[in-house]
This record gives sequence, C-alpha cells and structure tokens, in this order.
Amino acid sequence: MDNFYAPGKNHLFVPGPVNIPEPVIRAMNRNNEDYRSPAIPAMTKTLLEDVKKIFKTTTGTPFMIPTTGTGAWESALTNTLSPGDRIVSFLIGQFSLLWIDQQQRLKFNVDVVESEWGQGANLDVLAEKLAADRTHTIKAICIVHNETATGVTNNLATVRKLLDHYGHPALLLVDGVSSICALDFRMDEWGVDVALTGSQKALSLPTGIGIVCASPKALEATKTAKSVRVFFDWNDYLKFYKLGTFWPYTPSIQLLYGLRAALDLIFEEGLDNVIERHSRLGKATRLAVEAWGLKNCTQKEEWFSDTVTAVLVPPYIDSSEIVKRAWKRYNLSLGLGLNKVAGKVFRIGHLGNLNELQLLGCLAGVEMILKDVGYPVKLGSGVAAASAYLQNNIPMIPSRI
Amino acid sequence: MDNFYAPGKNHLFVPGPVNIPEPVIRAMNRNNEDYRSPAIPAMTKTLLEDVKKIFKTTTGTPFMIPTTGTGAWESALTNTLSPGDRIVSFLIGQFSLLWIDQQQRLKFNVDVVESEWGQGANLDVLAEKLAADRTHTIKAICIVHNETATGVTNNLATVRKLLDHYGHPALLLVDGVSSICALDFRMDEWGVDVALTGSQKALSLPTGIGIVCASPKALEATKTAKSVRVFFDWNDYLKFYKLGTFWPYTPSIQLLYGLRAALDLIFEEGLDNVIERHSRLGKATRLAVEAWGLKNCTQKEEWFSDTVTAVLVPPYIDSSEIVKRAWKRYNLSLGLGLNKVAGKVFRIGHLGNLNELQLLGCLAGVEMILKDVGYPVKLGSGVAAASAYLQNNIPMIPSRI
Amino acid sequence: MDNFYAPGKNHLFVPGPVNIPEPVIRAMNRNNEDYRSPAIPAMTKTLLEDVKKIFKTTTGTPFMIPTTGTGAWESALTNTLSPGDRIVSFLIGQFSLLWIDQQQRLKFNVDVVESEWGQGANLDVLAEKLAADRTHTIKAICIVHNETATGVTNNLATVRKLLDHYGHPALLLVDGVSSICALDFRMDEWGVDVALTGSQKALSLPTGIGIVCASPKALEATKTAKSVRVFFDWNDYLKFYKLGTFWPYTPSIQLLYGLRAALDLIFEEGLDNVIERHSRLGKATRLAVEAWGLKNCTQKEEWFSDTVTAVLVPPYIDSSEIVKRAWKRYNLSLGLGLNKVAGKVFRIGHLGNLNELQLLGCLAGVEMILKDVGYPVKLGSGVAAASAYLQNNIPMIPSRI
Amino acid sequence: MDNFYAPGKNHLFVPGPVNIPEPVIRAMNRNNEDYRSPAIPAMTKTLLEDVKKIFKTTTGTPFMIPTTGTGAWESALTNTLSPGDRIVSFLIGQFSLLWIDQQQRLKFNVDVVESEWGQGANLDVLAEKLAADRTHTIKAICIVHNETATGVTNNLATVRKLLDHYGHPALLLVDGVSSICALDFRMDEWGVDVALTGSQKALSLPTGIGIVCASPKALEATKTAKSVRVFFDWNDYLKFYKLGTFWPYTPSIQLLYGLRAALDLIFEEGLDNVIERHSRLGKATRLAVEAWGLKNCTQKEEWFSDTVTAVLVPPYIDSSEIVKRAWKRYNLSLGLGLNKVAGKVFRIGHLGNLNELQLLGCLAGVEMILKDVGYPVKLGSGVAAASAYLQNNIPMIPSRI
Repeated sequence: MDNFYAPGKNHLFVPGPVNIPEPVIRAMNRNNEDYRSPAIPAMTKTLLEDVKKIFKTTTGTPFMIPTTGTGAWESALTNTLSPGDRIVSFLIGQFSLLWIDQQQRLKFNVDVVESEWGQGANLDVLAEKLAADRTHTIKAICIVHNETATGVTNNLATVRKLLDHYGHPALLLVDGVSSICALDFRMDEWGVDVALTGSQKALSLPTGIGIVCASPKALEATKTAKSVRVFFDWNDYLKFYKLGTFWPYTPSIQLLYGLRAALDLIFEEGLDNVIERHSRLGKATRLAVEAWGLKNCTQKEEWFSDTVTAVLVPPYIDSSEIVKRAWKRYNLSLGLGLNKVAGKVFRIGHLGNLNELQLLGCLAGVEMILKDVGYPVKLGSGVAAASAYLQNNIPMIPSRI
Repeated sequence: MDNFYAPGKNHLFVPGPVNIPEPVIRAMNRNNEDYRSPAIPAMTKTLLEDVKKIFKTTTGTPFMIPTTGTGAWESALTNTLSPGDRIVSFLIGQFSLLWIDQQQRLKFNVDVVESEWGQGANLDVLAEKLAADRTHTIKAICIVHNETATGVTNNLATVRKLLDHYGHPALLLVDGVSSICALDFRMDEWGVDVALTGSQKALSLPTGIGIVCASPKALEATKTAKSVRVFFDWNDYLKFYKLGTFWPYTPSIQLLYGLRAALDLIFEEGLDNVIERHSRLGKATRLAVEAWGLKNCTQKEEWFSDTVTAVLVPPYIDSSEIVKRAWKRYNLSLGLGLNKVAGKVFRIGHLGNLNELQLLGCLAGVEMILKDVGYPVKLGSGVAAASAYLQNNIPMIPSRI
Repeated sequence: MDNFYAPGKNHLFVPGPVNIPEPVIRAMNRNNEDYRSPAIPAMTKTLLEDVKKIFKTTTGTPFMIPTTGTGAWESALTNTLSPGDRIVSFLIGQFSLLWIDQQQRLKFNVDVVESEWGQGANLDVLAEKLAADRTHTIKAICIVHNETATGVTNNLATVRKLLDHYGHPALLLVDGVSSICALDFRMDEWGVDVALTGSQKALSLPTGIGIVCASPKALEATKTAKSVRVFFDWNDYLKFYKLGTFWPYTPSIQLLYGLRAALDLIFEEGLDNVIERHSRLGKATRLAVEAWGLKNCTQKEEWFSDTVTAVLVPPYIDSSEIVKRAWKRYNLSLGLGLNKVAGKVFRIGHLGNLNELQLLGCLAGVEMILKDVGYPVKLGSGVAAASAYLQNNIPMIPSRI
Repeated sequence: MDNFYAPGKNHLFVPGPVNIPEPVIRAMNRNNEDYRSPAIPAMTKTLLEDVKKIFKTTTGTPFMIPTTGTGAWESALTNTLSPGDRIVSFLIGQFSLLWIDQQQRLKFNVDVVESEWGQGANLDVLAEKLAADRTHTIKAICIVHNETATGVTNNLATVRKLLDHYGHPALLLVDGVSSICALDFRMDEWGVDVALTGSQKALSLPTGIGIVCASPKALEATKTAKSVRVFFDWNDYLKFYKLGTFWPYTPSIQLLYGLRAALDLIFEEGLDNVIERHSRLGKATRLAVEAWGLKNCTQKEEWFSDTVTAVLVPPYIDSSEIVKRAWKRYNLSLGLGLNKVAGKVFRIGHLGNLNELQLLGCLAGVEMILKDVGYPVKLGSGVAAASAYLQNNIPMIPSRI
C-alpha cells in the first residue's frame, strides 16, 4: 500500500480532492454506529441547519446525498425537470461538458451555449435566448459557477439579473462544486434554485457526500418533474425529514462526523474569512504565473478563479510532463490539462483547507519543474511576486493574537 | 458530538452498518490523494481483481460505485433492463419491498410474488411462472439473498435450477447486501447475472461503496437496456477501465484503502472460514433465542439466516422498547422491527468482523433487557445454550496456534 | 504487524494496559506540535488543575512525568527521602515486592511488613511499629492501595488513622496505580503525601505518563531529601511551572491531548459514577467466580478489589494454560499469575473504560475456557450470577434518558 | 482543544518534536494490547534488531526506554559510571549545558571544556587532557554530536582518533539526539560506547522512547558502575531480554507499532538516502540564510549542522519576535534562541520526515517575517538560492520512477 512512498508530506494541489484538516481526519476516525439511534438524527438535524449557511440561504432545503458531484448533478436535474424539457447550458470546459453530456443522456433538450475554453459563459447569448423565449420554453439554465478545467468563474449575479430583466421563470441550476465554501456564493440573493457541491472540494472532506440545496421553487418543481429517479429522489429525503429520522438509506457515519467538524472549522474561521483566504491564494498564484512569464488559461480578469489556476505552457512543452515530474521528483500533485487543453495547461488547485506557506512551497516546486522541463524561468521569481503581495495582505490569525 | 456518551464500547449489533476492524480504521485514517496519480489506479486494479473473489466469480466484472445499497440496486436494474420490462420479484420483507418499490418507480412491469414475512421466496410460484412463460416475457428475476428485515435466507441454487430446468433466459439479479462475504454465495456456480453488496455490511467498512458484479450476460444486456442512467452507468466505468484510469468520477480515497485492508483481512482469515464463523454466530444466536423460549421470525430452518436473527416477542411486549432500552441502559445497539413486524420483532445482527465473545456479551445484554421489559427469562439461559455449542465448535485462531 | 490477527475485537481484560475509549484514540491521532508555542502550556495548565480532581486533592501539586509506574515510584521516593532513611513498606504481592526492591536498590532502610499473598497490608504490625517509634526514625510509610497481582485493596483510611493516633510525622506514600480513577481515593482526606498512577491504568490511555501528586508536606520534604535525582526531580518541574512553560523537557503532545480527552470523559460520566461502575464490575466478577465454584485469591471481603480479580484454580489446572487458551482460541486477554501465585491464579482486570456487557462477554469466555481445561463448570452459571446482580443495579445512561 | 486553530497545515520547523509521517500516525492509531501476549515480544525482537541499524552497530545492545532524551542521558551516565568519576564534557550550547548540569547533579566530577556558543567542541583541549592523563583518571568523554541550540555538529571521528592516539580507555558517551537517523553516525566505526536518541527527533515519532545503545565495553562497565539506578537500569532490561519477554515494565504499545512503521519507512527510503536528504535540506537552508544577508550562528563550515540552522539576526531585531510572528501570522513553528543566544538567533529545524518543498514553504515564510520585523530582505531571494541548489540535486523518488 505504500508502493509509491516518498518522504515528507505530499503536496496536494489538484483542484480536488483536497487536503483534509487534521481535526476532520480525527473526527472521522471511528467505528460505525447505528444510524437509527437518537444520536445520528440529532447530529443530522444540526448539519442540515448549518450546511445552509455555506450556501447563504435561509429558505433552501439541503440534501446530503451519499454520492459524488456527478450524482449531485443528476439529482439536481431529475428532481426538477422532465425528459424533453429545454435547458440552456453553457459549455466552457471539461466539467460543463460532462454535465451537458449528462443532461443529454437524461433526455433533456439541451440548448448548448459554447465559449472558447478559457472564457466564461456567454451571457450575451443567454440574454438573446431569454429575450426570444416569450413562451418560456426554457425550463432551466444550467451553469457551473467555477469551471475547474480552465479556472473560469462565471458571474451568477448577472445571470440572475438577466432572468429578472426578462421576467423569465426558468430555474437556475448551479454547479458550485469548486466554488461553494471558497468563492463568494449567495444562493438566496442570486435566486439560485438548485446549488450543489461535493464534500471533497472546498469543504475539505473525503469524497462521498453530494450536497444539494433546493429553493422553494425547485421543491415545487419536483411535483411536476417526470424524470425517473429513485436513489436521487428528494421526496424520499423529505419523507424522512418529516419523520425526524432523516435518512432513506444508510449514510456514512464517518462523513457525518467529518462534516460536523469541517463546518465547525469553517465557522470558527468565519465563512467570509475563508472566502478572503481563497482570494489571497488565487491572487498570489496569478502573480507567480505572471512573474514566470506564463499565461493564465483564463482570458480575462473578470473570470479569474480563486480556487484553481490553469497555466498555459509554451507550445514546446507538454504540460502533462510537468504533472508527472511534480509527482515523481517533488511529491507534488498538480492537475492535468483535460480534453481540449490536454498537454497545454497544468492546473494548480488552491482551494480548501490550505494556507499561504503551503501555496508558496507549491509555487517554489513549480518553478523548479519548469526549469526541469526546459522553460527558462528565473527561480524564485514567482515566489517573490506572490510573497510581496501576501506579506502585505495576510491577516494575523485571530485565535493567536 | 459526544452528546450521547456512555462508558465502554458500544455493542453494535444492528445488521448494518457493522463493526469496522481496527486495521481497516487505521487504513482509512489519511489525507486525500490525487486519484489521477499512478498510485490509485494501481491499487484499484488489485481491488477489482480481488473483489471478484468475494463473489466467487472469475467471469464477472465488478463495479465499485460511490453509493449505498439502494444505489447498487438502481445500478443493477437500469444497466440491464428497459422500462416496461417484466420482472419477477419476491416480496418477503422490508428490504425486498423497498427494492420492489424502486423497480416500480423505475417503470418496470413488476410481477410481485409475495410471501408472509418470515417465509422465504415462494419458488413454487416462480416455477409456475417460468413454466408458463413460453415466450420469455420475463426479463429478470430479482431476489434478495438474505432479507435483513426478517432474517430469511433464500435458496439461490434452487432459483438457478428452476431457470435451467425451464431453459429460461431471464437475468438473475441478486441483492446480496446482507449475505455476500458472510453467507455461502457462488456467483458463477449459481449463474447469478448481477450480484451486489454494500461496503457497510459484511465487508465491515463505512457506508459508501455499492459493489456490483455483472456476468458477461449482464454486460451484454447493457447494450439493449434502455433505462435512462448516467451516474450509475457501467459503460462509463468500462470506458475508464480500458484507459487504465478506472474512475469516471472521484472515488473516496479512504474507502479504497479501507477496502484493500478489509479484503486483506478476509483473505487472511480465509473466505470460507469467514462464512463458517458466521454460521457459528448464527447458530449460537438461534440456540439462545430458543433457550429464552422465544420464536424466530423466520418460520423454517431452511431459511434461517446466519447474518441476522429477527426475534419475535410476546404480544404484551413492544419490541421497540427493547431496542430503546438496549441503547439507553446497556450501550447495546439492536435492530428495530420494520413495517409489518414493527413492534413485534427486534433484530440481532451478527455479521461482519465479529467474534464469539462479542456475541455472548450481546446475548447476555438481551437477557437482561428481556427481564427489564417483563419477559420471564432465566438469566444466563441463552448464554449457556450458545456457549455449549460454541465451546465445542470454535476453532483455534490459526495465527496463534 | 498483523501476524497474530484474529477476527473481531480483542477482549482486553488484563489489569493494564486497558481499553482506550474511541474519543481518546481520536484525540491522540495527530502530528507533533511545538511544545513551546502558547497552545501546549495553555492546555497543560488546565490538565494540572483537572488532574488534581482524580486524586481528590485541592492542596496537592501534580507532576505528569514522561515515564511508567516504575518511574513514578522512583520519583515519589527520591524527591522526598534520603539514602538510609527508614521506611515501612508492605509486601503483599508482586507489585509491592517490586516497589520494595526499588526502595532497597535506592539505598533506603526498608522495614518490610510481609503478608501472605491474598491478604492485605498488616496494619496491626504498622500500629506496633508506630507505637514503638517514639523518636520518629520512620520517615515514610509505603503502601500500594491496590495490589494488582492478588486483587487486594488496602484500607488507607486506617493507615491515616494510625499515623494520627500515634502523632507520627512519617510521610505516607501511596501507589495508586491500579486504584486512582477507579476506586475511592481521597488524597486530602486521608492525608496522603505522595500518590501516583500511570496513564495506562484507570485513566485508559496508552502507557507514557506517570502522574504523581505531592502534598505540601511532600514538597517541603524535597528540600532535605538527599537522594540523587535529575530526570525525576520535581524541582525542575516547579521551576518551569513558575515560568509558565511547564515542561523541563519534551512531553508527548499526543498523550497530553489524550489526557485532556480522558479527563473530559471521566468528568462527563462523573468521577463518583466511574467509581460506582467499577464497584458494579468488581461485584459482578466475584459473583461469577463464586458461581463457578472457584475461590478468589483475596482472602477476605474487606480486601476485595473492584479493579482486578485474581481467581484461584484447582491444583490440577495450570492457570497459565487458561491465559494462553484465552488468547489462542477466544481473542481474550487475561492476566497471568505472577511469582508466588504463578500457575495458581489467573486475573481478570476490570478497570478503566469498560462496561457491563463487555465484562459479561469476558465471563462467558472464561467459562468456556474453564471447560476447555477440564474444570467442571456449568456453562452460563457465572454469567447468570453476574447478570442477576447487574440487571438490578445498572443505572440508565444519563446522556440517553 | 482547538483554541489556537488556524487553517491549513502547521509548518513545523522546530528541531523537535518533528513531523510524523502519515503511515506512522496510522500505525499508532490503536487500542492498547496485553504486552505479555506473544505479539509484543515478537515485535520487540525485530525492533531491537532493526534499531541497531540506525546506530550503525552490530555489536551494540539497544534499550528502548519509556522516557525522553533527558532520561536517556541519565541512563547512559548512571549505568556506566560511579559518583565521583571524572568525565570530560564539552559545553557548546544549551543542550550540552543541560547535560553537564545533569552530570554534576549526579555527582560526577565534570571537567568542562567550554567553547563559545557557535563553535564546536574544543578537541585541542581534549587532546591536551588525554595526553596529560597518564593514569587514566578520565573515565568518560561526554559529547553531543549535534548541539541543537546552535546548529553545531561535532567531529566524532576525531574524538575517537584522539582516544586511540593516546591509548586512552575512557568511555565515549554520545548524545545523538538531533543527529542519529539524520546525520552520518557510525557507532562501531567510531568506537562510541553509549549513543542515544529520542523518538521525537529524526525518527519522527511522538516523544516517549529514549533509545540508548551500549557497546560491549559499556555493558561491562555496568558491573562496576556504582551510580544508584532502578528505572534506568539496563540490567533489568537484560534480564527480561534473556527471558524473551523483553519488558521490565509496561511499554507504550502505540509507540512500538509506531517505531516499527518509522523504521520500515527509513529502510524503504534507505538510511543513506535519509542522510543525504538531510544534507540537501541543510545546504539549502544555509544558502537561503546567506542570500538574506544573515549569518549562521555556527562559526565555521566544518561544524555546520544538517538538522538545525541557528540564524543570527541583526542587533536591532529581537529573534523571539520572529518566532512569535511566525506562529501568529503564518502558522509556522520556528525554534527560539535559548539562554546565551536568546533574542539573538532563531532556529530552523530541518530534520525528520521532511521534503524539499516543505522547506521552501518555510523559507518563503521566514522571508516574509523578516520583512515584517523590519529587516530589509529581498523577498524570494532565499528561496531562489535554495531552489537553484535543490533543482540540481533532488533525486527522482525511487518508488515513482
């Protein structure tokens, strides 16, 4: 099992799964329990209350489904829509592509709005479509808040404004997998109808819980949604919520305790501080990339992502060599370029329970790897640029002042 | 989080989730890892090979899906069948009921064969249906190997014999959730087409992996199966198996290492020894029940389950009081009676990583609880009956001789 | 490392090291930390305050020394006495013997009062010696509160009464290794000058902290005590207590967090409830022994120990065979007979974080082993006797009512 | 318990206790066990064999004492020497000072050879003393291999040469606390009579085992050594070694399993590779210090330590402010300046299970802190210098090629 042993810590900078904080690892270090005893429902109740806070919703209803992000997607779609329903969906990278693939296989009528990879969702096209859709044939807008493959963050507030502007009743379904709990996300304010994330992303847990939050309008939509669903059916959950036993089938005891600990840490740091920390980490990473003389895959500042940076490499370098070398020589895990940008970008994930010195260690590693593969980087340049910014902006740790 | 603290170990005797052995808890005590590094695929490869052994198959193809047993059910059905397909399904207790409910909601044409709760699947009716079905309208037989709600084990060898006798091509789909890795189960020999279990049952892991194994015939069926599926689609797995990266979406790193450790322990003990141990635990439990003067919910010896015993209580006792009291006074977790047998039975789960003295502690506890609730039990009687059998039958621990 | 693997839990019934509760194992599951940061002193301060409670002292000064019980003994002696000092010491079993051996090797003038093994300290002889010692040549009385080898509890209140009666100023040094936190122990009320225990006993931690508590009189004695000491010197601790950094050398970070968790659990249960629980477990064990027709090594009820029971076996049985068989067949760990009682007794440790059903599982195991080795026990008899008592006396778990 | 919580990993760069690798944390995550069962002696036997390898001895006898480095010192001295014995001891920093203090309090006649802090042991003076000591009044030479307070490594080969040159029979006692398992250490080749280390140093375990290794000559010396000792007496261990039960008192089960895992990792990496890794980390750190324009507390290259670097700060800066700020703003743990160099140096520990990117993260942090406290450092300069060296010298990870 330690067939790939290397001394020291693994530097985990893929955009998920991410580093789990020690208190969370500890909380999950336990035997199973009867999930029908009073203990698990009592804890579940607090989790359902508290998990709403990371969505910034007071009116939403959360579901903690034993699945991955892909399952959470399926749950969002099948509970609110019927086969044949027209949905507008934005293709801007690998994960939006996969979601669209799922939408199509689930038999929806997907109206794909494609952008060049590295650009955000084309909201002008959305505006046109909404304007044209007087009869409200569009049942839902599906959009990833943060495209993990290219490091692009879409502007959800604008999406909401457009919907409101045109008085369009389409549901707004948001993949917040690499954003929620890391980027500014406001379910209620932005009128998001279904938002979802996975436990292994900014929540910094193992994979295994797809957390989905539904607006009252989304819950209402379940009544007419004809998509076939059982495992992912929210109504099975709602039935058990009413009973106070909460679980239609067996949850992972360990992940529930882990989620409890993860939320406690997030609230202890303060959700807004968590978001600010991600903003610092994102900014510092981009400054390093710039100092190295490399380009960000994301084409405009308005789309820059604070959770993942996709770095374009010169054409004479294969970015997958960078990722391999990182692992083989430096015990550093970076993200590969996927699909259209395979070989062209490598990705630095900077989300979850992570601090600045961890990031600087990663950046120092990337510099050495760039040199390894023949890119004429000035060693220390990226760290210097990042540090100059961080040294001015890192706050004192509140619990230690 | 320790709001329900009680000194000493919790005695976990629900029929799932079950006790996790310490080496498995240790193996899962870890940070996340990049699942696209060479380490995870290398381990996954060994897991896929080894997991087949617990199904006793060499020709099956396993899928380790991040879901629960309910999801594993859905995966078995949607990958092999089309809406409207006729399936014969046996209703013998709460879990077969739930599976049937799923089958119906997934739009299959379910031909339900009901038995009284406490009886096994009515195979005479199956014989009749197969005999009558000259045109092979029956596409699948769905059967739980072990009904966890009533402690009834069905005879799968007979099901296969009937299918063969009538030369019927129906698929044989088996819920082995509370049997596989604990009861005698032979996928290849019995011609099972899809078999499935959950990680939190006899494998003694946390909840989170639905392990499904498909025969070549079942894989062939996926080509014509029209049920809508994405998250549960085996073909997405098969695509990644071919690529050697194995995962269409993020698995739980911790559960993979846990499964590796769990399988290692099972092979170290020897799968047949594991099954024999369950046979001893089941027999000992039934001897205790008899000594207490109580009846087994299971009506005939041929159906007695070696993984769970549902004990009928006299009409003047509410069995849910026994379960409550077990938890509130003795830190003992027993299974409730469900649905039709609610209030009438309590259940002792004796599956997974469990030994004889643990069971005897549980039985001693049940005796005291029976007395607590007014049943005139002779304290020590069940333990005496179980011990008399066990003292003659427990083998020496091979590693310690 | 799992060369001696056996399925299920190991049933740990040696009188130390004992079962560690899960929350404590979790608390220790952590990386190292800088012990000179503010965090460790802040925690140490609370530990020093709280650890006094388990000694029932408000005036004592505790030391948490990175050592075992043997080291704690040495610390008690060398900090308070000078070579050649006369001390009265009671030899009643293997552990008092080892302490006396240490006292002699540390060059004290040891006045040994021997009892037959199975009897308590001979306090009549103590009375005589005190009466005769008009010039106060006796500098200390050394006594084990609970002799772990024979299951004998000495009456410390009487020792104090004798000292007071004769107005004798001798220090009272008490080995509370297998008593403190399990038996009734009152440092201040009984005028104990040095009391000590080890983390792996009733505190239910790993081995590694010798906890020693010194009365003001004992601290005063350090000023004149000429025994050579450095590692065990309390003054080095006192110096760092004053500085607020607390540690003259590196403590185990893990054990400090473990101790914090262990104390939290003890206070949550309530120290007096912990003691009562031990009283129940001791009584139940003795009832089982009686039901088996066997004798307790402890000769009189006044000395019966609630933390360990040494069971005499008939002369035709070698008790070490019982211990071997327990481990080899039942995954049960019992204590050997030591020295004078080797082969004649086996020991059941019933101390620490343990509940009644765990004990009943052990007793059921012992019954089977007794039959294995040819003793004509009636299976179930001991469990029946113990259960009859327990069923009347176990309280509801307060957190679950 | 998380009163001082900060997001992300704590960057632990004190020179002990050091980072524990995950596989070792896992190995220790366990309940207690009976240390008298066959399992613990069997493991202890392999540990005693394997632990000799880290001392590079085949003739030595190791003792794994449940204590700290301070206790290991005491064990080395009291087992081999008698009160009044003349020993030559080198005072070159805080830890040699503390050892000398212990030597004096243990009543030896200590002939102190003092150097300025930042210099190594004055071996010229040793030569003089040996030359003058025709009657062999010097019974032992006591020397720290690596002075942790100043980052000075002494040349043990030269000490041996001097002893041999003068044909002097004095015992050579070496404190290898911050060297063994990290620096080149050769017990047999250098004729070291007692060598010792602590588990929380380069072995990367929690505190709790003082590992002492004695040459045949040292064992012989125990026969005449009159120092009073019980807890630390090697003969008690030797007695139990012969019995095959190994332990005179209760060891920490968890630390034994941890040591097993730690040794396995060290042998997997290769002890010589471990030492080379430390050489790289030491060199990289010193290059950074130079790039910052700061001085190493160690005055000459021959004494440079590869496990800890003490960095001198300009007189207008209080080095303890650097350490405080590191913890309060960057979650970085650095070592304080001690005693004579308090306020003048801060220390970077770079020993144990640590890799290059971890160190670079630390160095990037130190740069920011230096700027915080008003030192005109060029951000990135130290990282650049260290990286330039490391990028040329880090080998591929053997298990991943």
